[in-house]
Amino acid sequence: MRFPQSDTENRRRHTASHIMTYAVKMLRPDVHLGVGPWTDSGFYQDYDFGGSPLSEHDFKDIQKKMRWIINKNFAVVQQDVSEEHARAHFAGDPYKQELIDGILARGLALSFYHFQNDAGQNVYSDLCAGPHLSYTGDVGAFELTKIAGAYWRGDEKLAQLTRIYGVAFATEELLSEYHHFIAEAAKRDHRRLGQELGLFTFSDLVGPGLPLFTPKGTFIRRKIQDTIMALSSAEGYTEVCIPHLAQPDLYKTSGHWEKFSDDLFHVRGKNDAAFVMKPMNCPHHTQVYASQMRSYRDLPQRYMETTMVYRDEKHGELSGLSRVRSITQDDAHVFCRLSQVKDESQRIVRIIEQFYARIGMWEKENFWVSLSVRDPKTLEKYLGGEENWSTAERFLEEVCQEAALPYKRIEGEAAFYGPKLDFMFYDSLQRERQLSTIQIDFVQPERFGLEYTAEDGTKERPVMIHRAIAGSLERFMSVMIEHFAGAFPAWLSPVQCVVLPVNPAHDAAANALMERLRQRGVRAELWDTSETLGKRVRNAQTEKLPYSIVLGDTEAASGQLTVRAYGQETEQTISFDEFCEVLQ
Amino acid sequence: MRFPQSDTENRRRHTASHIMTYAVKMLRPDVHLGVGPWTDSGFYQDYDFGGSPLSEHDFKDIQKKMRWIINKNFAVVQQDVSEEHARAHFAGDPYKQELIDGILARGLALSFYHFQNDAGQNVYSDLCAGPHLSYTGDVGAFELTKIAGAYWRGDEKLAQLTRIYGVAFATEELLSEYHHFIAEAAKRDHRRLGQELGLFTFSDLVGPGLPLFTPKGTFIRRKIQDTIMALSSAEGYTEVCIPHLAQPDLYKTSGHWEKFSDDLFHVRGKNDAAFVMKPMNCPHHTQVYASQMRSYRDLPQRYMETTMVYRDEKHGELSGLSRVRSITQDDAHVFCRLSQVKDESQRIVRIIEQFYARIGMWEKENFWVSLSVRDPKTLEKYLGGEENWSTAERFLEEVCQEAALPYKRIEGEAAFYGPKLDFMFYDSLQRERQLSTIQIDFVQPERFGLEYTAEDGTKERPVMIHRAIAGSLERFMSVMIEHFAGAFPAWLSPVQCVVLPVNPAHDAAANALMERLRQRGVRAELWDTSETLGKRVRNAQTEKLPYSIVLGDTEAASGQLTVRAYGQETEQTISFDEFCEVLQ
Repeated sequence: MRFPQSDTENRRRHTASHIMTYAVKMLRPDVHLGVGPWTDSGFYQDYDFGGSPLSEHDFKDIQKKMRWIINKNFAVVQQDVSEEHARAHFAGDPYKQELIDGILARGLALSFYHFQNDAGQNVYSDLCAGPHLSYTGDVGAFELTKIAGAYWRGDEKLAQLTRIYGVAFATEELLSEYHHFIAEAAKRDHRRLGQELGLFTFSDLVGPGLPLFTPKGTFIRRKIQDTIMALSSAEGYTEVCIPHLAQPDLYKTSGHWEKFSDDLFHVRGKNDAAFVMKPMNCPHHTQVYASQMRSYRDLPQRYMETTMVYRDEKHGELSGLSRVRSITQDDAHVFCRLSQVKDESQRIVRIIEQFYARIGMWEKENFWVSLSVRDPKTLEKYLGGEENWSTAERFLEEVCQEAALPYKRIEGEAAFYGPKLDFMFYDSLQRERQLSTIQIDFVQPERFGLEYTAEDGTKERPVMIHRAIAGSLERFMSVMIEHFAGAFPAWLSPVQCVVLPVNPAHDAAANALMERLRQRGVRAELWDTSETLGKRVRNAQTEKLPYSIVLGDTEAASGQLTVRAYGQETEQTISFDEFCEVLQ
Repeated sequence: MRFPQSDTENRRRHTASHIMTYAVKMLRPDVHLGVGPWTDSGFYQDYDFGGSPLSEHDFKDIQKKMRWIINKNFAVVQQDVSEEHARAHFAGDPYKQELIDGILARGLALSFYHFQNDAGQNVYSDLCAGPHLSYTGDVGAFELTKIAGAYWRGDEKLAQLTRIYGVAFATEELLSEYHHFIAEAAKRDHRRLGQELGLFTFSDLVGPGLPLFTPKGTFIRRKIQDTIMALSSAEGYTEVCIPHLAQPDLYKTSGHWEKFSDDLFHVRGKNDAAFVMKPMNCPHHTQVYASQMRSYRDLPQRYMETTMVYRDEKHGELSGLSRVRSITQDDAHVFCRLSQVKDESQRIVRIIEQFYARIGMWEKENFWVSLSVRDPKTLEKYLGGEENWSTAERFLEEVCQEAALPYKRIEGEAAFYGPKLDFMFYDSLQRERQLSTIQIDFVQPERFGLEYTAEDGTKERPVMIHRAIAGSLERFMSVMIEHFAGAFPAWLSPVQCVVLPVNPAHDAAANALMERLRQRGVRAELWDTSETLGKRVRNAQTEKLPYSIVLGDTEAASGQLTVRAYGQETEQTISFDEFCEVLQ
């Protein structure tokens, strides 16, 4: 589902979070409080319950008290307070004291939000910058959803707190839609479906976060990869190939060393030769560019490569294919002149359009584009020169306009090295997934001293464009498995159809049919009569195969095919040629 | 060239080595001596010259003295000596004393070889197990070829010695053939050609032994890879995909940890989680096999994958693409029943045959097959069971016989885990290159506890087959670059033809021709008239492009193509369709 986004919804979630904490304090007056913000889909609050935390079994009690608070319809009132007042109010709560320190250090006012009864008495108060709804009764429908561990300030070395999550909606209908969404998402969970459909596996010997893809899963990966490569090739991209290692020097030069060295896998060989596993491909690709003298006539150079990068994600954050340590990027880098940035971005948009049209996600209501530009108030923090920036920002906006993309210009979201376009798609459960990206980069060509010879013989600096179409193939596969609930369209399906002879007398005809289908490029399998027909028809549904073809006396006589598409109750009679055409 | 191989040739090389050392001792009486064996192509001897080693400038003097020794035609005489005698003879030479220790420790006799003059006096003696020619005059033609550093006992921590290499042949004609071979090999050196043709590069920032492939080099890699994958796919192989990391547990289970841990790249992340970079793919592939219950009906499982493995080769041993640290294997593993080993091996032989026929190397005189079986005298050192071994050895020999492969059965060359077939090809300079391999493995399925359910419901152990067609893509590319001297056949060439308009008036027609060629799948480029036609024609030869098409008034009028093939002096007139057919 698309969680409603607006200032009102943020207030609703925020106020619900305060209501939850008031309720929790009724049950556990001595609880200490971490942070408790709203999110795009709900809210949470971190608690330190001392030795005995609440559990999901307590949700019923908390929710009962929350309902009481909502029914009381307390007014929500803001008040700036003195340091003395704030510290006294939270005496004994070390987290709140630390939060107060932080607010004061930044020279901000200490703001409280109170729940007030009709008599104007504060029944509950919290340190909070707001904003909130005006009355607790405005919250509407809500629900607590789960409990998880969370570290104070996100730091594994600090105290572990208990985080309680919830959702809040204007109406019971939205809450019920949310329930439906949760149930549907569980059914589509790619970790479960990936196992059931035999697409990938994890091995205790190989280690966590390192998926191994079976023939079926690899087929899907390969199809995605080949499709993107073919579309890119048509736009002038050529493939390059780099190793997965580099010396630290490469990342010291690129500037990634300082920022990322904590997420890098460090490698040592004999004699303590030091390498790191590449966490991205751009620095290597600059070295391919730099391997020859380049003239303006050689530009753009467009390098693509589908290759694994490695990042040392925390064990606890690994999850199926969504968060892994071996990340396959469908990566590409363009080295071009500033004047070519618009045309190059348009080429990439064409690749994205064709790819997502093929997936069935390229409808205007199913995606939006974030155009990330500089914050005009802090222009000094962006590197690369005013002309580069203003031209590239204008080009990217023109690209959006001319392709009639549904885009939002977001100031301050640009990276320090250049503006970018991020493509956000809604999957079949209307979840937003950031997938494609086009990022302009003025900094790496500078750091690596890349150049080309201009018409007048002078040396000029190229601009670099980073682009990904699917993003990480692992994450993209997790999105696709959940989007299609495992029932892939025929072009993406490792097995497209299965031939089911009714009884052994039809085996020969079934085998001949399978061979004819294969000769036409159809990925067909034959399931022989060692199982009953009913069982085989059910198995084809369980395995979510796009088509099953039943072959009995009628079909043997007529030469027509009896085909059942996945999820359909009825069968269809079509000719062999028609069926092959459907699959092209 | 194929260096002549025989007992006589080995003796010739060995005696030449002694002659060289006698000559060196005349120049430097105080030199200490390491080892000095013959090899398949010549001989060498390691020397410790103290602080001031001889150099290649001294070759003239050494060779002059060697010629004197040969002309003297000393008799070469063997004699067993006492420890006392041997130690006294080499008093002060620590290497010889160590060699004497080693011989005695193994309980062997101490053997000397003397050069004796007509009077029966020993003019020169060395500790040596032989064998040798009877007279120094039998050596024939010889030459010293190069000097390199070498560590005593190959150990970097021990003394560095000076190694002098040489060659020896029965006739001056063979020596002159050798000179021609050396000159031709230098012209074809893949390190030079790879740079000149822009196929790959090394970066000081990325590090030694880690090649980066440019678009052209990647095209050739991809073509090789796709060809092997298509041929394998037709034999029932499916692609899988694994990460480049694994926990040490994987290799402790496989047994590689003990043997290879010195050549492994060790990886550390946060919290000291330990991984290694995979030095081979088989253990990962066992985990794909083990991810599901397998029945005899599911066998054979055939997994292929073209993927990089990493080995910490010594810096000093790295060389171009021949010896690298990032090694791309065109790897595959078959899990099957013992009874299927013959059929599976035949499938692999078909893939090898079709692939090398395409390369132009599949003529009986251009390759031979080494069938490595057990040493019948030490059957106890081979693991896996008598029935497995005798059946698999018989199957492999039948495969060789039925396909009429030129094979040699070599006893004692089998690995401890199973017999194998290695395919040795002669390149265009007649150098022997070991490329394809089929290895049976009874041990890994056991160590990983792999099984399948047999017809009767019992669990059985599959046999594993390792196979490679090209071997490492890096090494294979180095072989191909040198084999074709950079002039790749059209199907393997990144650019197949270049269209050369005679003058600007032909630009439009040339462009139209290029587009028509591209639509027919031809990899065509257009070189415009910014350079003279003569210059462009020469550039097409320098870049070793398969075909150049000159387009002037005649061709524009006739519609025929004027085509020059690489290396040809004359042009040919053919129709557009004929040309496209040539390239199919």
